[in-house]
Amino acid sequence: MKEPGGAAASAAVEASEAAFETTARRVILGHERSLRLDCGIGLRDFPLAYQTYGRLNAERSNAILVCHALTGDQYAASLHPRTGKSGWWDIMIGPGKPLDTERYFIVCSNVLGGCMGSAGPSEIDPATGELWSLSFPVITIADMVRAQAMLLDHLGIDQLFAVIGGSMGGMQVLEWASLFPERVFAAIPVATAAHHSAQNIAFHEVGRQAIMADPDWMGGEYWRHGRRPHRGLAVARMAAHITYLSEGKLHQKFGRRLQDRTVVTYGFDADFQVESYLRHQGISFVERFDANAYLYITRAMDYFDMAARHGGVLANAFRDTPVRFCVLSFTSDWLYPTAQSRRIVHALNAVAANVSFAEIVSDAGHDAFLVDEPEFHRVLRGFLTGAAQHRGLPMGGRK
Amino acid sequence: MKEPGGAAASAAVEASEAAFETTARRVILGHERSLRLDCGIGLRDFPLAYQTYGRLNAERSNAILVCHALTGDQYAASLHPRTGKSGWWDIMIGPGKPLDTERYFIVCSNVLGGCMGSAGPSEIDPATGELWSLSFPVITIADMVRAQAMLLDHLGIDQLFAVIGGSMGGMQVLEWASLFPERVFAAIPVATAAHHSAQNIAFHEVGRQAIMADPDWMGGEYWRHGRRPHRGLAVARMAAHITYLSEGKLHQKFGRRLQDRTVVTYGFDADFQVESYLRHQGISFVERFDANAYLYITRAMDYFDMAARHGGVLANAFRDTPVRFCVLSFTSDWLYPTAQSRRIVHALNAVAANVSFAEIVSDAGHDAFLVDEPEFHRVLRGFLTGAAQHRGLPMGGRK
Repeated sequence: MKEPGGAAASAAVEASEAAFETTARRVILGHERSLRLDCGIGLRDFPLAYQTYGRLNAERSNAILVCHALTGDQYAASLHPRTGKSGWWDIMIGPGKPLDTERYFIVCSNVLGGCMGSAGPSEIDPATGELWSLSFPVITIADMVRAQAMLLDHLGIDQLFAVIGGSMGGMQVLEWASLFPERVFAAIPVATAAHHSAQNIAFHEVGRQAIMADPDWMGGEYWRHGRRPHRGLAVARMAAHITYLSEGKLHQKFGRRLQDRTVVTYGFDADFQVESYLRHQGISFVERFDANAYLYITRAMDYFDMAARHGGVLANAFRDTPVRFCVLSFTSDWLYPTAQSRRIVHALNAVAANVSFAEIVSDAGHDAFLVDEPEFHRVLRGFLTGAAQHRGLPMGGRK
Repeated sequence: MKEPGGAAASAAVEASEAAFETTARRVILGHERSLRLDCGIGLRDFPLAYQTYGRLNAERSNAILVCHALTGDQYAASLHPRTGKSGWWDIMIGPGKPLDTERYFIVCSNVLGGCMGSAGPSEIDPATGELWSLSFPVITIADMVRAQAMLLDHLGIDQLFAVIGGSMGGMQVLEWASLFPERVFAAIPVATAAHHSAQNIAFHEVGRQAIMADPDWMGGEYWRHGRRPHRGLAVARMAAHITYLSEGKLHQKFGRRLQDRTVVTYGFDADFQVESYLRHQGISFVERFDANAYLYITRAMDYFDMAARHGGVLANAFRDTPVRFCVLSFTSDWLYPTAQSRRIVHALNAVAANVSFAEIVSDAGHDAFLVDEPEFHRVLRGFLTGAAQHRGLPMGGRK
C-alpha cells in the first residue's frame, strides 16, 4: 500500500463532490496524461461520470468499485435521473445491505463509451466541439478499466478493497485483477465469462443490425438530424432481454397467459403477456439509452477475450496474483453459464490464486445478479466479511 | 380404410400433375365446401401448392405427408425455384433414403399462410382480385392441417401411411393425429412441442417487431407500394437463426474466429465469422421469403397449444388413438428441448397409445432434424420399416 492520497487530491474530491451533490458527479480526466486506448488512440480531457455511496475512511482502504453491466450506469443505488426509478443495485448497496454503506465506500462510474455522462458517442468531442457519434474510438473492456483507474487516482484511492460486478461488470472485474493486481484486494466477478462466446457475439450482432437497419439511425448521425433510431434500439433490447431470463422464469412469470383478454384475437396485437412485457421493455429502454452507445458497448464485450491477450492461456492473465477472488454463477444463467465461471476458476487454480467459487441455485436466469437472491447475498456478505478481516478493516460501522 | 379414391379423383390428380409437371403443383381447393378456419372465417377457392416424390401405389396405401417448418416449403427434395438450391430434406427423401421414394409416395405442401403458392398474405384474394396482405385471416396449425386434408381428398388418399415433420412440421403431425386419427397410420413428430412456450413466443415476437418496425413494411401494404421490409425481415431471421443452433455448434463452427482478417478492426464491420454468417443468413432469407407470411406463420405457432383445446389435458387430444407414434428429439435442441417431447410421450402413454420415443444425441441444436444425423436416420428407418410391415406394405421397391 502506498500512502493515502495527498491533501490536494482530497480537496479536489470534496470540491468535485460538493459541486455535483444534487446531480451527477463528473470529472474530466486525461488532462496531464492521455488515456491510451487498445485501438491505439489517446483520449484526452474526457469526462467520466460517477456516483459514490458511503464514506471513504481515513486510511482510504474501504473503497469498493461497482462495475455495471451493458445497460447499467452509475446510478447503482440512487434514483435514476431519466426514469425516476430506484438504482439497479439498490437491493445490494445501502446501510446493512451486502455492500454496506455504513462500512464501505462504494464508487460506481458510467463506463467509457456509455451514455450517462462519461465519454462516448453521445458526448461532445472536446477537439471539435461536436458530438462524437461514430467518430468515437471503439473501446474495450480494458479501456473502461483504465479509465476507472484514472478516476480512482483522482479520488486518491490507491487500492480498492474490492471490485465487483455482474455480466459485463464481471468482465471489468477480471480486467481489474489482471491489469492492476496491486490495486485490488478482492475481486468478485459474477455471472460472467473470460471471453465472449460465438452465441454471445451472435445475439449482440442481431441487436446491432436491428439498430443499423433503422433508417433513423442515419449512419450513426441521428443526433445531428434530430432523429433517434428508437424502433431498432427497442428490437435490440427485446432480443437481448430474452437472454437475460431463464426459460423457466419466463414460463413462471408469463407462461401462455393472455394480456387483458380471455381469448386470442387472431391478430398481431400483443395477445400474450410475454409479448406485452417485451414490447414494454423495448419502449422504455429507448428513453434512457443511446443507440450508438449500445453499439460501442456490445462491441467492447464481443472483443473481450482475456486468454487471447495472454498467449491463449487464461491463467497467464493472473500469474502471481495477490488478489483474492470470489467467482459466482447462477444455475439457470444460459447467457454466461456456470461452465464459463468454472473456466475462470480453473485458470485461477492453475496459478494457485486464492479463490472461492459458488454456483448459486436460482431460476432467475442471467438477471439473478440483479434481483433478490438470498443465497447470493449471503455468500457475498460472507466473502466480504472474511476479506475485510484479512484486510484489517474495522468490523463495526464506518470510520 | 375406405375404398381408394374414385376414377374422377385420379383423373383430376393426373391432369393437375401433368399441367404442373415442370413447375410447382398447385390446386384450388374449397370450391364445393369452404375451409372453416379456427378464427371463424370460411376460405373458398384457395390455392395449395405442393410437390410429390415417388409414386402412389394401386392401394393408395404408401403415402407419406411431409410437413415443413416455419421457413420451409413444398420443395423438400427438389431444386428451389427461387434459390436454385437443393431441397431442405434432400438428405431424407429419395431412392434408398429413409423416406424411400422407391417405396413411398411423398407429398409435401406449402402450408396455408405460406408464400410459395399456397393461400397466404402474398397471394391474391379471389374475392377482390387484390393481394390479401393483412386482410388474410390469421390461421392456426390446425387450419394448415385441415387444408392438407383437403389436398389429400383431392389426391384420392384416404389414409396416410405416415405423417412426419420437424419443428412446426411436428406440430402439424400432432394435429393430424388428433384431428384425423383414422387418416393416419403412423405419426412422427420430430424436435417439436405440443405448445409454444413463453420463450418461444418471445423470440417470435422479436422477429415480428423487427418486421413491423421497418418503415418499408408500410402497415403490411408493402407490395402495393412496391417496397419490401428486407431489413426488418433479415433481423427477424438472424434472431431466429441463433435459436436453431446449439451453443456448442456455434462454438465449433465459428468460435471467435475472425472473418478474412487477422486482427479486429475496432469498428462495426463483421469482424467475426459468426457475424458474417448471420448477416448472410438474413440477407439470403429475404430473397425467398415474404415478411407478412413470416408474421402469419409465427403467429400460428404461438397460438399452438393442444392441451388448451382439450380441457387443459394433452392426453385428451389422443384418446383412443389408433395411430402409432414415433417421437424424436435431439439432446442439444434448446428451442424445443427433449422435455417438450417427453410431455407428448407422457400424454400418449396416458391413453395407452403405441409410442416409440428416442432422444438422439446430437450437437447440431434444433436444426439437427435437417442435417446428416446418422442415428436419427437409422431410428426413423427402423420405425418406418416396422410400421410398413404392420401396414402390410410390400417390402421391396415400389409397386
